[in-house]
Amino acid sequence: MKIAFIGLGNMGLPMAKNLVKAGFSVAGFDLSGAALQALEAAGGKAADSAAEAARDAQVVVSMLPAAAHVKSLYLGGGQGAQSTQGLLAQMAPGALIIDSSTISASAAREVAEAARAKGIDMVDAPVSGGTAAADAGTLTFMVGGDGAQLERARAVLEKMGKNIFHAGDHGAGQTAKVCNNMLLGIIMSGTCEALQLGIANGLDPKILSEIIGKSSGASWVVNSYNPCPGTLENVPSSRAYSGGFATDLMLKDLGLAVEAATDIRASVPLGGLARNLFAMHSAAGNGKLDCGSIFNMFAVAKP
Amino acid sequence: MKIAFIGLGNMGLPMAKNLVKAGFSVAGFDLSGAALQALEAAGGKAADSAAEAARDAQVVVSMLPAAAHVKSLYLGGGQGAQSTQGLLAQMAPGALIIDSSTISASAAREVAEAARAKGIDMVDAPVSGGTAAADAGTLTFMVGGDGAQLERARAVLEKMGKNIFHAGDHGAGQTAKVCNNMLLGIIMSGTCEALQLGIANGLDPKILSEIIGKSSGASWVVNSYNPCPGTLENVPSSRAYSGGFATDLMLKDLGLAVEAATDIRASVPLGGLARNLFAMHSAAGNGKLDCGSIFNMFAVAKP
Amino acid sequence: MKIAFIGLGNMGLPMAKNLVKAGFSVAGFDLSGAALQALEAAGGKAADSAAEAARDAQVVVSMLPAAAHVKSLYLGGGQGAQSTQGLLAQMAPGALIIDSSTISASAAREVAEAARAKGIDMVDAPVSGGTAAADAGTLTFMVGGDGAQLERARAVLEKMGKNIFHAGDHGAGQTAKVCNNMLLGIIMSGTCEALQLGIANGLDPKILSEIIGKSSGASWVVNSYNPCPGTLENVPSSRAYSGGFATDLMLKDLGLAVEAATDIRASVPLGGLARNLFAMHSAAGNGKLDCGSIFNMFAVAKP
Amino acid sequence: MKIAFIGLGNMGLPMAKNLVKAGFSVAGFDLSGAALQALEAAGGKAADSAAEAARDAQVVVSMLPAAAHVKSLYLGGGQGAQSTQGLLAQMAPGALIIDSSTISASAAREVAEAARAKGIDMVDAPVSGGTAAADAGTLTFMVGGDGAQLERARAVLEKMGKNIFHAGDHGAGQTAKVCNNMLLGIIMSGTCEALQLGIANGLDPKILSEIIGKSSGASWVVNSYNPCPGTLENVPSSRAYSGGFATDLMLKDLGLAVEAATDIRASVPLGGLARNLFAMHSAAGNGKLDCGSIFNMFAVAKP
Repeated sequence: MKIAFIGLGNMGLPMAKNLVKAGFSVAGFDLSGAALQALEAAGGKAADSAAEAARDAQVVVSMLPAAAHVKSLYLGGGQGAQSTQGLLAQMAPGALIIDSSTISASAAREVAEAARAKGIDMVDAPVSGGTAAADAGTLTFMVGGDGAQLERARAVLEKMGKNIFHAGDHGAGQTAKVCNNMLLGIIMSGTCEALQLGIANGLDPKILSEIIGKSSGASWVVNSYNPCPGTLENVPSSRAYSGGFATDLMLKDLGLAVEAATDIRASVPLGGLARNLFAMHSAAGNGKLDCGSIFNMFAVAKP
Repeated sequence: MKIAFIGLGNMGLPMAKNLVKAGFSVAGFDLSGAALQALEAAGGKAADSAAEAARDAQVVVSMLPAAAHVKSLYLGGGQGAQSTQGLLAQMAPGALIIDSSTISASAAREVAEAARAKGIDMVDAPVSGGTAAADAGTLTFMVGGDGAQLERARAVLEKMGKNIFHAGDHGAGQTAKVCNNMLLGIIMSGTCEALQLGIANGLDPKILSEIIGKSSGASWVVNSYNPCPGTLENVPSSRAYSGGFATDLMLKDLGLAVEAATDIRASVPLGGLARNLFAMHSAAGNGKLDCGSIFNMFAVAKP
Repeated sequence: MKIAFIGLGNMGLPMAKNLVKAGFSVAGFDLSGAALQALEAAGGKAADSAAEAARDAQVVVSMLPAAAHVKSLYLGGGQGAQSTQGLLAQMAPGALIIDSSTISASAAREVAEAARAKGIDMVDAPVSGGTAAADAGTLTFMVGGDGAQLERARAVLEKMGKNIFHAGDHGAGQTAKVCNNMLLGIIMSGTCEALQLGIANGLDPKILSEIIGKSSGASWVVNSYNPCPGTLENVPSSRAYSGGFATDLMLKDLGLAVEAATDIRASVPLGGLARNLFAMHSAAGNGKLDCGSIFNMFAVAKP
Repeated sequence: MKIAFIGLGNMGLPMAKNLVKAGFSVAGFDLSGAALQALEAAGGKAADSAAEAARDAQVVVSMLPAAAHVKSLYLGGGQGAQSTQGLLAQMAPGALIIDSSTISASAAREVAEAARAKGIDMVDAPVSGGTAAADAGTLTFMVGGDGAQLERARAVLEKMGKNIFHAGDHGAGQTAKVCNNMLLGIIMSGTCEALQLGIANGLDPKILSEIIGKSSGASWVVNSYNPCPGTLENVPSSRAYSGGFATDLMLKDLGLAVEAATDIRASVPLGGLARNLFAMHSAAGNGKLDCGSIFNMFAVAKP
């Protein structure tokens, strides 16, 4: 089976490599020459454009930064001489699109609807797990689309991930992702507050983390991604918040959550506050650091 | 060994019963006659007063609602004819006090200091786990005191709990508890927001909970105490929020966290907001319901 | 001069009447027959459609609920047989559009740009002051557009309002409105919290309001729109929160503010929290009441 | 009349000077020698201790940083050789105490009760207006006590202030102060958010401030204490946030508000969030700057 992979960034490249490793013929495209070379070195094929990568592909996988890129890729856009044709106009009916970008559910539905009109199947399949899971092929996929479409996608998804969830119809994968990541942002900030409060009162954060990790405050964050330096090895907080899930990406996902809530007049008071805290943290110059660095924002001044 | 147990409420009674079951001679006191009868029915002894229960006891365990009760019990108080003598004045040097009430760290230190002056050992040992764990003898204890005191207490604690953590010196158990429960309050509210946002966008909360439970938003709350009815069996949300950890107790613990933070000028923005949300929820008449009932506060109105 | 007025709701109708009173020839359109009759009774002319109202008009004033209505009015929309032509396609070059609806700055710029391409001047001119000021002709207008356009609009605006501010270029009127109303939402909620805290501590809210009103916490809200019943006469709180600025409109404006902030990664922690509080208040069934009714949300339960 | 004035800081010294200017015989005490010299230079008398200052005084005025200082002054404290006797033990029955410190209402009631037992009248009389109003003798006093006590105090208060409000019984002055200042903290933060949102969208903050200042978002803050540099002259924001009402004092007052709310299970979501924002701002090193410097916390990063 021939697969086109569009978007070879920190997440996309290791995902594409796992598809190569699984024996698929993978043609990739990215604006970065270094990313293309890395794919070729791993046994994939570098294409000159998304259209070239997608030629004759039965499956197109995309992993792009935001809705604008996804829409531009599939639907084209621009005006007059700057206008571009989208992939949908060039793909053969019967092809399958797997979009793993994190975008709004409404944007996902818009593209899926346009694909359907061309006889092309599309699922939204955003991921959880970060670069470590992308490398290891242990991502969690949250899939939106009908059941038959998910079954078509499964053979590809299971080479990149361990858990494949059928969240619901088109857009539901994105909704599940945004709900999860909003909660991640809340738990991350809250865990930082709790640990700093303990530290300022004389507790050892490692001991406090062990206690919380076996109590009712336990979470994936405190047990597997602890934001306090010195509590866990091999997590971003143990290497000066490098690598990991950047503050600016967390801010983007919290923004999607807040917009989704605003659209339907939902109340997300903690989610909204977390977005504002990460916005302040980013504006203070920490956008590229792992999101756990918000730990520093709650440090208590020594008297 | 003779143990006095003061405070036989929803938590204290099953804890005292587990001590009886373990073979200790337990004399209990509570203002409720029904609680005293229940202790007797389980093989314990009902005392007419705290002082009588504590006579000749090597260990006094207390499980009371708030700092005022703990201080009154051990230090006495009141003025003139209303004044009462505290247990410390009556206990023999060398006795051990285990206070499992949830109170401020500063109140815990104050009582421990007064006990030390009388030659009495005291540890603060608040618990996590709720009534189910109190029944099963699987509570988590967070102990503040010196190491030798913890070792003295261990033989008693391990009959009531599964995890016994040495949080640090006097008061550290209370600090750990308040940090954990503040985080619990944050995660509880945040999980409710996330699930309601998903539901309002058409997701099945059971599926969404499964996805989150295996993703970066995972927590004890979503996996073991899910606040959305229909997602888990045998949790308060599955029985109209009866039983469990009441909103008013959550509000009390969040109040302790906010006061601890205010005292040292710490910032706990999500913890503070959670306290205010539970205060509104309680004022609306939900104080006796399990704290997961805050789920209803974030319901999205149908258009 | 002939003026078309599109949107004769609680705000639009009294505004249009003031233009009639000032001697302009006003043709109005609204979907409500009652509104059209009321305009005719006041000396205006009822049109069968927006297009008919705008025929031969030198100036079109619009006062509509949201961006979707404004875009549909001027740009048209829909597909196939349902498609409609917008007013811009029918208006003569040289006409002037004054849009007093509250919409996003980006939507305002989009319509102004389309108007400019047809040789039509457009200003965004949202208002502050509510129905009382609309009746009295004492609205505040916040105008976005170039200086010459504002001067063209002034002769019309000054018949409906007292203060006419030039906020800046196209969209700036909407930005000023959204900043003001976000702050109004914050001050409204905050004033309610402060008054309830005082009341629960035994203070008379009327005396407390007088103190605050002459101190550093003073605001238009506490002095002219006090949300606590019994403190001021002739305000919504004195008539069970009827009339005034509805909770759902406040929620809409706070949503616009939060979206504007999210778009540019700005932090508005209090503004975001206010939006969530009003969302909870609306979901609890108070959407049609004046926004000051959020006062009840912070009532302290009697012990 | 002989007046003792205890606490000659930024507020106390100009207040005491105004009493000298009014013809009273004023004996002052402060730990700072410079403050004592300044009082003498203005015509007052420097005392070696609070007790000496209070000897033969009909009225004692105090202006101290926190409840601990006020209690220590009037009630004494400490243990053994370190113990001190309070002024109440030395003052003659019939004297009047005016405490203008900002402390909790409960602490104010405690001291007033002890005074009453000695036959001494006491009112709590915290102020609003800052150092400028203290200099000019135009402070606002919020007085708690009975009506006769307020009348006794009036002759002194009216030499230092312009507005004298009778808030209610003992402690009510402090409650009014804490409600006002909580609201000030909310409006200050909210105004900063609104102005930064406008600026990031291209608006001139001076024009935006003028618009808001005549609209429903108007407040004392935006019109008389604008936190955005360049909008008003002679305010702290125009001199790099020097002088004025320090962040750490705002943080203290917001802490009093949050504690008052927590004590009675009141909800103050915006007040609580404002406290946390000022705590972060202080911890970042801005504690000595005027509280309006929180403006910088909401600056939007340039893309």
